[in-house]
Amino acid sequence: MTVTDEPTANPGYKQVGTRPIRPDGLDKVTGKARFGADLVLPGMLEGAVLRSPHPHATIVAIDTSAAEAMPGVHAVITGADFPDLAANGARPDDVLMSKNVMARDKVLYEGHPVAAVAAATRKQAKAAAAAIDVTYELLPHVLTVEQAMADDAPILHEGMRTRGLDPAPEVDSNIASRITHERGDLDQGFADADLVVERSFTTKPVHQGYIEPHAAVADASQDGRANLWCSSQGHFSMRTSTAKVLGWEPTRIKVTPAEIGGGFGGKTVIYLEPLATLLSLRSGRPVRLVMDRDEVFRASGPASGTSLRVKVGVTEDGQLTAADVWMAFEAGANPGSPVGAAGMTVLAPYDIPNFFVEGFDVVVNKPRVAAYRAPGAPMAAFAVESVLDELAAGIGIDPVELRLRNAVTEGSQAAYGPKFPVIGFVETLEAIRDHPHYQTELGPNQGRGVAAGFWFNAGMNSTATVNVNEDGNLTVVVGSPDIGGSRSSMCLMAAEELGIDVGRVNAIVADTETVGFNDVTGGSRVTLATGAAVVDACRQIKDDLRGRAAKTWDVEVDVVEWVDGQAQHVDGSETPLTLGELAAKWGRTGGPISATAALNARGVGPAFSTQVCDVEVDPETGEVTVLRYTTAQDAGTAIHPSYVEGQMQGGVVQGIGWALNEEYIYSDDGHLENPGFLDYRVPVASDLPMIDTVVVEVPNPAHPYGVRGVGEVGIVPPLAAVGNAIAAATGVRLTDLPMSPPRVLDAINRAAGDGGD
Amino acid sequence: MTVTDEPTANPGYKQVGTRPIRPDGLDKVTGKARFGADLVLPGMLEGAVLRSPHPHATIVAIDTSAAEAMPGVHAVITGADFPDLAANGARPDDVLMSKNVMARDKVLYEGHPVAAVAAATRKQAKAAAAAIDVTYELLPHVLTVEQAMADDAPILHEGMRTRGLDPAPEVDSNIASRITHERGDLDQGFADADLVVERSFTTKPVHQGYIEPHAAVADASQDGRANLWCSSQGHFSMRTSTAKVLGWEPTRIKVTPAEIGGGFGGKTVIYLEPLATLLSLRSGRPVRLVMDRDEVFRASGPASGTSLRVKVGVTEDGQLTAADVWMAFEAGANPGSPVGAAGMTVLAPYDIPNFFVEGFDVVVNKPRVAAYRAPGAPMAAFAVESVLDELAAGIGIDPVELRLRNAVTEGSQAAYGPKFPVIGFVETLEAIRDHPHYQTELGPNQGRGVAAGFWFNAGMNSTATVNVNEDGNLTVVVGSPDIGGSRSSMCLMAAEELGIDVGRVNAIVADTETVGFNDVTGGSRVTLATGAAVVDACRQIKDDLRGRAAKTWDVEVDVVEWVDGQAQHVDGSETPLTLGELAAKWGRTGGPISATAALNARGVGPAFSTQVCDVEVDPETGEVTVLRYTTAQDAGTAIHPSYVEGQMQGGVVQGIGWALNEEYIYSDDGHLENPGFLDYRVPVASDLPMIDTVVVEVPNPAHPYGVRGVGEVGIVPPLAAVGNAIAAATGVRLTDLPMSPPRVLDAINRAAGDGGD
Repeated sequence: MTVTDEPTANPGYKQVGTRPIRPDGLDKVTGKARFGADLVLPGMLEGAVLRSPHPHATIVAIDTSAAEAMPGVHAVITGADFPDLAANGARPDDVLMSKNVMARDKVLYEGHPVAAVAAATRKQAKAAAAAIDVTYELLPHVLTVEQAMADDAPILHEGMRTRGLDPAPEVDSNIASRITHERGDLDQGFADADLVVERSFTTKPVHQGYIEPHAAVADASQDGRANLWCSSQGHFSMRTSTAKVLGWEPTRIKVTPAEIGGGFGGKTVIYLEPLATLLSLRSGRPVRLVMDRDEVFRASGPASGTSLRVKVGVTEDGQLTAADVWMAFEAGANPGSPVGAAGMTVLAPYDIPNFFVEGFDVVVNKPRVAAYRAPGAPMAAFAVESVLDELAAGIGIDPVELRLRNAVTEGSQAAYGPKFPVIGFVETLEAIRDHPHYQTELGPNQGRGVAAGFWFNAGMNSTATVNVNEDGNLTVVVGSPDIGGSRSSMCLMAAEELGIDVGRVNAIVADTETVGFNDVTGGSRVTLATGAAVVDACRQIKDDLRGRAAKTWDVEVDVVEWVDGQAQHVDGSETPLTLGELAAKWGRTGGPISATAALNARGVGPAFSTQVCDVEVDPETGEVTVLRYTTAQDAGTAIHPSYVEGQMQGGVVQGIGWALNEEYIYSDDGHLENPGFLDYRVPVASDLPMIDTVVVEVPNPAHPYGVRGVGEVGIVPPLAAVGNAIAAATGVRLTDLPMSPPRVLDAINRAAGDGGD
Repeated sequence: MTVTDEPTANPGYKQVGTRPIRPDGLDKVTGKARFGADLVLPGMLEGAVLRSPHPHATIVAIDTSAAEAMPGVHAVITGADFPDLAANGARPDDVLMSKNVMARDKVLYEGHPVAAVAAATRKQAKAAAAAIDVTYELLPHVLTVEQAMADDAPILHEGMRTRGLDPAPEVDSNIASRITHERGDLDQGFADADLVVERSFTTKPVHQGYIEPHAAVADASQDGRANLWCSSQGHFSMRTSTAKVLGWEPTRIKVTPAEIGGGFGGKTVIYLEPLATLLSLRSGRPVRLVMDRDEVFRASGPASGTSLRVKVGVTEDGQLTAADVWMAFEAGANPGSPVGAAGMTVLAPYDIPNFFVEGFDVVVNKPRVAAYRAPGAPMAAFAVESVLDELAAGIGIDPVELRLRNAVTEGSQAAYGPKFPVIGFVETLEAIRDHPHYQTELGPNQGRGVAAGFWFNAGMNSTATVNVNEDGNLTVVVGSPDIGGSRSSMCLMAAEELGIDVGRVNAIVADTETVGFNDVTGGSRVTLATGAAVVDACRQIKDDLRGRAAKTWDVEVDVVEWVDGQAQHVDGSETPLTLGELAAKWGRTGGPISATAALNARGVGPAFSTQVCDVEVDPETGEVTVLRYTTAQDAGTAIHPSYVEGQMQGGVVQGIGWALNEEYIYSDDGHLENPGFLDYRVPVASDLPMIDTVVVEVPNPAHPYGVRGVGEVGIVPPLAAVGNAIAAATGVRLTDLPMSPPRVLDAINRAAGDGGD
């Protein structure tokens, strides 16, 4: 990240668009920043979780007596220690969440928690957990959507019937729900086409790649309240979820956010929090629980593995006529895959007159999936954008041009329903088409692929408080964990509003008691929604300051303007009063200066990205090297361009990993075989070229600074962009991820008629 | 403290006036509460302060080289490491504050910090501090106001001239300033009197008696920001003061308040905070500094020792005609005794047509004094209320009656200037006059004394945020450390405003970043001022909730009332919506519900107390036993009556200790001889009867719940009440505090013509 003071766009802004140094950087590089596992409390115990070694089994009995008698052990808990939410009338999803946190009558995946221990040391806790005697009765398991959807499949959840079917089914199923979207006349659409391509695709479960394992420290008090520290993407939702599992009112729990060492959707879910709280309550001591990396892989939520079929028709002049999409998403042990979002995003970038989209949420004996950056969209885009690439080649037009001819614009009716507001999809396509990268020559075994992607972005609830300090500096208090530079963006918007230098603004992420409610940091929503709350609070403060200047000058407030960080009389008849001067004398004008704003953000600005990728494929080994990569993305307005570029680059890099190497490898007997970053290989810096970024700015008119949200859409195109580039380099289309060397080599060999494996 | 749910007064209130259990109680009795010294950070160093062994000396040289070479030592600082505030144009008071925190060219009292060390362990830090070689050149010292005011006294501060003299003096002096108040014609007033009594009094420096020593943990970062944890009465003022000493902007420091183990005025001052911050900055590690009890006594601020002369005239029918008051207050090493407040309060309870009050702030070679509960007023009241007792006896009227005949009421012009608003002084006098205690018989060697007292109470700046949670419970966020139950009082007022049970409200004290600015917790101001901010925020929330109900019902907001915790349509045409129901659906009505209010409180309600004390004096030993004690105090409204009673009792008990036993004993060579709670004896429970309380409630019309503030005035009357009771029991008037057994015995013996010592 380069530090400069050059505004990149929006020349009217003085702070927004600059690149101040990241406020959390020094503490992070010097080790001062405190992450989830860094808290130490006096008398704190260490915990360990006993997890199921089986992918599917009935728990016949649990004997904790030996563990309880072991040295240093203060508390042992099992499912029996948790309230029966179903009996208390809880929502089915909450009942399942509770059983995911701690198994009750049966275990649904390898790694499913069965018991937990708090002891004086971590070693003692692990030894005691190992001494718990669990009697299992093994059950047959299913690991893929194909196995799970089979008619004779073993059923994970007795009584589960597929939602979204008409008539309602009368037999239990592993298909939790079915979603559909349709428009026009599919048969007519395909009849109108000059070329139809149909392909099947699969993708594997992948990890979000956050480096910091899940960790929680709980300190419960005998009055039934608890303090909880954890690293998450939303301490308010951690509070709500933990309270639900414990059967408590949320306000009995205070959650203090730690710095977060990566989340990408994976830290929106509770795992350890209710266990730590209950262990603390039982032991009367603070309790810390930290997952090993192995536990992170085996027991926290990856992105879904999927199976997709896509059929698209096009006329010879490049008009898309019809699309038929079938998708099945692994949910893991409980329903809740992002197939819904996949169904909504899969055709969203294009105006297609006739389509049918069908999706299935399927439970399998693996850990319940969690969100991962634009959940559901990358797999869906992999399928559609691969087919579009074949269609473009088939009718002989440039793949960017094909997309331009069918791109949605303001007023287009999105495939998922609403009409698009102002959007910048065409601008991202044009940016790639016109980029020097797109014109460069390629060498032997090299290929170029393009792909586009869409993400809704989200709004949701945010609250922010802005406090003026006695030195005239601002403190911006938010409740949205900063996973991508939001503290800096909040400072920039606040500084812009108040007309002061961004160095005079500090933003902090407060706990669940000191700031009002905030929804989770996700959906690329924080700069938009929390930012809007910050701007609203700053505007209240500006009005307040104008009033104080008016009082000081004994004039009407409407002759006082706020310009460049100071109150000015419209006719220049008074010496301007700076923010610092007004702050220093607040006692005389009504007291301290502080404002709070809360909102459920409206006017969300959808995001699009178009990307181009050059690869070289080694025909001897199947290894794919990414030579050059350029991503164009509509940020709306880039509040802090360096962070925007970083988000764009990060999304691409994760997408490249997903495309080329990443996958959870399960043995047939349901055991994860690569639970660590040595065997589960994410791309590292030396694997990649610098990812070039083109920040397109089509401001969102519904946000005070035009923000859209930039965190997620960048991961949507790469799977297809890489696949399309490999196809261009090799002439072979790969449809199963990851496109790892053995798979690529095999495909090349098959195409060459050499057989393959 | 009894736990009941009976409202004591104000029958219209449902929450205010009840006695919910204290929210911080369980954590305090179980040891979970975290006080100043309880924080542990990874890598934290322990500090030690080297202090002057001399009361007055020039620092010739400091050699830290041996200390720096000692094992475990990470940083050593001296005065040379602090910025020269005078050269930077700082205010003289701030320059002196800085030099009090760390001596520069000379030391002004035994205990004055000279250097500080951070090391791996406290033992290593102390050893290294002891190895610092300081070369002193001793100077003559002064320990009392008499010594300090003498013409040839050694001067503490070169260049210090007495302020408040006309013409301005031309020689240096230890008298920092002179204050005066006057009215009418003093000579004529005394000429109009039938009886004039004049007495001289002395009081000794006393300790506030807080149990928790000063402690601070600092964690400074290389970017020039610092986190500071400390136990104080005002973390915002700790921030401001620390920043001043370091030459920083206040917002570079975040101060997180610890629970406070007593303060009573003594924790409004910085001692360790800048040292810990600088040591942390130098060492790159967190640093904890904790005072030993010895250091608390030698180097933190006690209440002033004083010397007073009071002359008052009265007519035979009990009208006070004139008062002449002379007061000199020890400031300790730097100016700043509470003689100003003493001068304002000394005659405030009475309408006296002619008076002259003169006071002096005098520096001496002892630690700089700090505030102590109603600073300055107890010593002044000791003198005046003792003289009034003699006057009542002299003209043969009841001492309560004498006070009633001269008591200030609404509209009286206070001796310190303004006209009194609605006050309850007469009501407290009548409450004592009419109390059964006042009529009981006394036995031999027993006596009864009464005395009254006044305290302004304060307003000042407060900010509060109130957050509604998704379960409909409230979180009240304040920035005023809770030293006397203010969290509970805030909850009661918020619950009353919103019409919900107090159990649904939680109040927390937030750090300097997460809540807006708050002045120090002192001046009995928090329930009034912070309470008003809480009420204001709650009213914003109530309006917000009414608006959401109106939106839900699609009606105008003015037909929606808020009654009993729910929105109701005025004509009953809609099903009421509770706070919980509105909270659960906030996303549909505009987002989360949260409000902030900030104010500089107006409408402060002055406080009065009248007290009666029965003692028995052992004629053989001079020991005084307090047999019974009743205090009547105007609380305005008792928000939480148990806490109000507790404050009243606590003030009385501290006053009894001050009257009977407490004193700092200095040797002639300037060394404190009783720096610990074994030799400095505060009253313990077995020394005392239960203090009976009469909570008088004359609501303050300028506060939404009639609050005045109750923390301080209770300590004003006891010194004289006890003295008057001893005089009644023995026939001997004691004018020098403490009235310890040797002094009482000596006075009895002298009066009996036995000589005495």
